[in-house]
Amino acid sequence: MNSFEFYNPVKILFGEGKVDEIANEIPEDAVVLITYGGGSIKKNGVYQKVMNALKGFKVVEFGGIEPNPKYEDLMKAVDYARKEQVTFLLAVGGGSVIDGTKFIAAAVPFTGDPWNLLVGGKAFTVENALPIGTVLTLPATGSEMNSGAVVSRKSTQEKYSFGSPLLYPKFSVLDPTFTYSLPETQVANGVIDAFIHVTEQYLTYPDQAHIQDRWSEGVLQTLVELGPQAISNPLNYDVRSNIMWSCTMALNGILSVGVPTDWATHMIGHELTAFFGLDHAITLAIILPSLLRTMRDEKKLKLLQYGKRVWGIETGTDDIRVDKAIEATEKFFQSMGIKTRFADYGITIDQLKPIVERFKQRGWKLGENKTITSDIIEAILKGAL
Amino acid sequence: MNSFEFYNPVKILFGEGKVDEIANEIPEDAVVLITYGGGSIKKNGVYQKVMNALKGFKVVEFGGIEPNPKYEDLMKAVDYARKEQVTFLLAVGGGSVIDGTKFIAAAVPFTGDPWNLLVGGKAFTVENALPIGTVLTLPATGSEMNSGAVVSRKSTQEKYSFGSPLLYPKFSVLDPTFTYSLPETQVANGVIDAFIHVTEQYLTYPDQAHIQDRWSEGVLQTLVELGPQAISNPLNYDVRSNIMWSCTMALNGILSVGVPTDWATHMIGHELTAFFGLDHAITLAIILPSLLRTMRDEKKLKLLQYGKRVWGIETGTDDIRVDKAIEATEKFFQSMGIKTRFADYGITIDQLKPIVERFKQRGWKLGENKTITSDIIEAILKGAL
Repeated sequence: MNSFEFYNPVKILFGEGKVDEIANEIPEDAVVLITYGGGSIKKNGVYQKVMNALKGFKVVEFGGIEPNPKYEDLMKAVDYARKEQVTFLLAVGGGSVIDGTKFIAAAVPFTGDPWNLLVGGKAFTVENALPIGTVLTLPATGSEMNSGAVVSRKSTQEKYSFGSPLLYPKFSVLDPTFTYSLPETQVANGVIDAFIHVTEQYLTYPDQAHIQDRWSEGVLQTLVELGPQAISNPLNYDVRSNIMWSCTMALNGILSVGVPTDWATHMIGHELTAFFGLDHAITLAIILPSLLRTMRDEKKLKLLQYGKRVWGIETGTDDIRVDKAIEATEKFFQSMGIKTRFADYGITIDQLKPIVERFKQRGWKLGENKTITSDIIEAILKGAL
Repeated sequence: MNSFEFYNPVKILFGEGKVDEIANEIPEDAVVLITYGGGSIKKNGVYQKVMNALKGFKVVEFGGIEPNPKYEDLMKAVDYARKEQVTFLLAVGGGSVIDGTKFIAAAVPFTGDPWNLLVGGKAFTVENALPIGTVLTLPATGSEMNSGAVVSRKSTQEKYSFGSPLLYPKFSVLDPTFTYSLPETQVANGVIDAFIHVTEQYLTYPDQAHIQDRWSEGVLQTLVELGPQAISNPLNYDVRSNIMWSCTMALNGILSVGVPTDWATHMIGHELTAFFGLDHAITLAIILPSLLRTMRDEKKLKLLQYGKRVWGIETGTDDIRVDKAIEATEKFFQSMGIKTRFADYGITIDQLKPIVERFKQRGWKLGENKTITSDIIEAILKGAL
């Protein structure tokens, strides 16, 4: 096990009706900016519950934050928050709304060009941020309990992640009933997003980290067991509770302490979203199986362990068991209704060339061993046609 | 899954040499009181490393905090801390030193009789506390990453737990090499203490909490796999790392969110320590197997799950599998060198009567179903003769 630091001060309020308690968590004299997405919270009653809970506060709002939140749109919220002298941000939505709100939180007090917060080096780390709370409506990204965010720029087709300990939410409300009205595809996307958050931290090489392995496997097993039920039985509170908690635990930092991490699937997936507008989870579901096949030698020991503990694969040669484990993974994504090949989305090898080119120019080497060059990325993309 | 709140802001600094970084975590102008136990830290070099890391601070010290820290001794530290105008407490030791230091932290600014912090009702909750840091030398209690503590009173043979969110350590250093010089019995005690912290939160009744179950099982499996190695191979960094992290994760609150908890083994065990001075872990190792046998009907479903997932027990009738699971548990404790029967410690049924009497007078009903009355406690004690 490697040395590490772990710190996560987010207060979780979990359960039906917990939104009623948020007034206790926000400074009395706060000017609150509620941020949200496409407006589903106004149809399913969540917006009204939040407004009821905020009685007595001065509240303003900024809606319309899109999936893969755009820098250009978020800067409008930054201007608005400055004008209204907002002192507290309450993100009501999924990972995109929360990520966008983290950017707003960092950008409002930032005196330079806020784009530098995303692409800048050390000179532009976050030194100040508005406090944030969140009311989660879409379990997926884990953003409600971590300090990172991903923001895109339309004009340049770029997607960047950034983060700071100052961006941990002060609190996050996780009410499983708020997820009842989600469309099936969003539930499926969330399960797959969380699943691949775990594999990025787990499917690397053995590093004598027993708890981290067991806990990662526990999240994966839970998603495999309950993911299909979340689709087939959408109003089951227990199923939704476990899916919600799985997604939060998948990326709150506790699984990655002291172990190598990969994140190549995400790095490649981000480009697919930037170029083709594919849902984040879909990009991951396309890339992961091919990446595992391509990197099977480096990941062999962990793939065997994963096959055994998550899928019960115990027979056959090592090669056969690795095959089976990867196949089970891809089939699981498909069983959630998510297609896993570029052809399913009408994307051809020619259209993927600019992505390989971008990685070639950057010269990045991805993966837990820093061996995934642009050549290997090309192989991974071809393997997913 | 039940509704819950979760909040744990402790910063963990994990790994060899991490103590060198503590100056960054303590206010520059702090007056630091180092608290410690019997002085082993002066022999194994930990004291010197801490002092080196604190160069530039005004440092005073209070040693001699005993296992099962005593109110009477801790009050001396409270007086001393007040006299020296201490502003930061650094506990260097195991759970007893950390628990004692939590009491000191709460008692120094308390204006009433500090004993009321332990036995008092709501009128005496902690409203102010000195900040604490910890340097852990004995993995066991989890106190380094939670907000609770247990303190005893010599004069009345009482042992009480208390806690407050104000008592979370600001930081805790977990350096596995600091555990290399521990005596075998302390390592064994720590493993068993952590094991039973988990069973108190897990061996109850099924509550549709998949992550909590899997994570509890993951800690138990790790302790079963590595506990004996920690004894047989005491200088193995990886083994010690995993034991240390297991003990911390066993009682930082993440395993008990949204699930029923038992804690009867601890409640009974505390009395055994108060009456006979037995090590905390030994009291738990005596009580748990007998408690599981006595409460086997209420705990049946979880005992079957535990047997299967932790011990691989899959054959036989339900009754046989429950028997096997409990037997495996008791044998595990014995394999760590801990004896599990009162007779092994020369304690007779007559000597146990005052404990039954005390529970009868209190009228407490313990356990996840509040069904463990003094009669059942008597049966549990008899079952462990």
